[in-house]
Amino acid sequence: MAIIVKKFGGTSVGSIELIRNIARRIATGHQPGDSLVLVVSAMAKTTDDLVQLAYGISDHPSRRELDMLLTAGERISMSLLSLALQEEGFASISFTGSQSGIITDDKHGNARILNVNAFRIHEELAKGKIVIVAGFQGVSQSKEITTLGRGGSDTSAVALACYLKAERCEIFTDVDGVFTADPRCVENPWLLQEIGYNEMLALSYSGSKVMHPRAVEFACKYRIPVEVKSSFTFAPGTMIHTIEHKQGKNMEERKITAIAHKEKLLGYVLERSEALIGLLKNWHDEIFKYFVEDGRIELIIEDKYAGEVNYALEQNHIPVLRKDLGIGYVTLVGLGINLDPGWLAATLEVCVPFGVSRIQHSDQTIELMLPSAEVKNCVQALHNAFLGENK
Amino acid sequence: MAIIVKKFGGTSVGSIELIRNIARRIATGHQPGDSLVLVVSAMAKTTDDLVQLAYGISDHPSRRELDMLLTAGERISMSLLSLALQEEGFASISFTGSQSGIITDDKHGNARILNVNAFRIHEELAKGKIVIVAGFQGVSQSKEITTLGRGGSDTSAVALACYLKAERCEIFTDVDGVFTADPRCVENPWLLQEIGYNEMLALSYSGSKVMHPRAVEFACKYRIPVEVKSSFTFAPGTMIHTIEHKQGKNMEERKITAIAHKEKLLGYVLERSEALIGLLKNWHDEIFKYFVEDGRIELIIEDKYAGEVNYALEQNHIPVLRKDLGIGYVTLVGLGINLDPGWLAATLEVCVPFGVSRIQHSDQTIELMLPSAEVKNCVQALHNAFLGENK
Repeated sequence: MAIIVKKFGGTSVGSIELIRNIARRIATGHQPGDSLVLVVSAMAKTTDDLVQLAYGISDHPSRRELDMLLTAGERISMSLLSLALQEEGFASISFTGSQSGIITDDKHGNARILNVNAFRIHEELAKGKIVIVAGFQGVSQSKEITTLGRGGSDTSAVALACYLKAERCEIFTDVDGVFTADPRCVENPWLLQEIGYNEMLALSYSGSKVMHPRAVEFACKYRIPVEVKSSFTFAPGTMIHTIEHKQGKNMEERKITAIAHKEKLLGYVLERSEALIGLLKNWHDEIFKYFVEDGRIELIIEDKYAGEVNYALEQNHIPVLRKDLGIGYVTLVGLGINLDPGWLAATLEVCVPFGVSRIQHSDQTIELMLPSAEVKNCVQALHNAFLGENK
Repeated sequence: MAIIVKKFGGTSVGSIELIRNIARRIATGHQPGDSLVLVVSAMAKTTDDLVQLAYGISDHPSRRELDMLLTAGERISMSLLSLALQEEGFASISFTGSQSGIITDDKHGNARILNVNAFRIHEELAKGKIVIVAGFQGVSQSKEITTLGRGGSDTSAVALACYLKAERCEIFTDVDGVFTADPRCVENPWLLQEIGYNEMLALSYSGSKVMHPRAVEFACKYRIPVEVKSSFTFAPGTMIHTIEHKQGKNMEERKITAIAHKEKLLGYVLERSEALIGLLKNWHDEIFKYFVEDGRIELIIEDKYAGEVNYALEQNHIPVLRKDLGIGYVTLVGLGINLDPGWLAATLEVCVPFGVSRIQHSDQTIELMLPSAEVKNCVQALHNAFLGENK
């Protein structure tokens, strides 16, 4: 009897109707005897609303109390989903992160998972119940309630799948899976049936919003097969797993798998200083890219972090030598593409019109920096050139 | 009955004594009923000597004739190894790349494998023979003899392992396996028992000489377990495969796995031009790193390619705006390390004394550019800081 972990994000549990839809279709796509563990986020916007309430009271609310407040969000969605399942005739029980045994360190607001003691989940599964777990939250070793930071629910789901030795983890979301490029940006993208762990890690790191890089990293490290699929249609989506490349013709061919982008970025050019190095130690998702040259440190961040980054730099008296606005990044991902400089040549040819100011690379990525306003056109042009026809 | 592919590099077959040693110990480390396919390089320096002979006759020898000449090298080593095995009482037969059915494209000197039709190997294995295959060589669809370029024998071995559905591929070489840093450079490195495919790809791309990145890429794409081990001791070495990370404590910890370096690099700063883009399309290993900024293209190459790169730039009338000598690169490799800017901070702190002029990164690497003369000290300092104690 296999255990399947299914995770439903905020938009998937965004209304009573959507929650009922999940309850009605929960048995889709697996064997009747399988055990189900459902990980839920807070209903769409709940977390943002709660954050806003807190900032209405304090400009810099205590992280501990903020965690206490925010964890109310999943408590609401998980109990509603449990009620909906019971209405459909299923036996179910909901657990907080703490009740589920998700043990974290004590970094409020951005805790990391240390261990999972899932005996209560196992007990309830043994009784034939569907277990619903609050994503995004855990408990520290000193019994304080913590939250896992951005991408937290995905990370909860993948970590639970790992500890429960689940057959797979299914991430239900508001898109059909992982596409060759963002469908909101490109005309003719196609759904990838499967993608390897490391390519998915590069893709999510470079702007694909389907899964948070931290959750992909977890899946990659512990080899948890993850399926990303639509919570509206429950149709087959994209499998993230170890790809079985078949032996066949043209085995050394190198291909672009997909294109990711980030559109709204800022660049800070800063003098190297001990204060800055101290700050770097406490940052996580804030830094998208860094680039150090001749003692100056350039940090590229998403504009949503501008407030906190500005505040931190000011508080630590770190002067900003230059601030660049309106930066975009487009990243081509494909295993081994930089063992063949022909891909750089082809990229340069396609990108003439888009004002690309910088190109860097790793062994499996080519990364273009360009003005925000050119990002969509550039992604479309690269997609036409390298991914125009479905295989 | 499993098939095992074992590859012996040039230094491993560098003398009659070494070849006899291999023949005596060939049965070490596998089941008695297993079938053996041995892939051999030319005896150490043979290829270089043959190249020198050709350049004694012509400054720019035809690539077709050069391939014809060079493939004599493996013909010598494979027949000698077959004779040595027969002396030890084994039944054996040697095959050229063509006889083994290694089909390539027609790019003489740097051919890529298109397909492998290994029916003659299967026939001989079925008769109980040990089959010896010339590495580095293949045959084009128009029956011309081709060579696979640098790293060719490793690539032959991994490709054969893939097509023969071998249980694993063993790369016998003059080191004990993959170390946390180059033992010729660092005092206290330790042998990695295992490493994941993608980390090994980053490591080999960044200077680890144990295997050529192209062969690692092949192993990675087709998931061929590869063991790198000593041809002198036949002791267990490093397994390159999918690592089974165990669930346990501190699951989200991110660690540096190993450090690679390149010591003798040149930088060319060039104006973007169509001629240059044309050249890029024909280059392969020549380019170690590229960096494009504001229309200028900076290429970092290993100094052994300086001659051909200079020649190509001159022939195509591409002016060199700036040439930088004495560049080194040090690369830290670890899954997900750039999801945590703390690793940048720690690296900056360690690297103060070493004149690091540029730092770039990917999701699993931190790459430092610094003067050649500082490379060894920098690697030692980083190893002390991040890999000082064995786990």
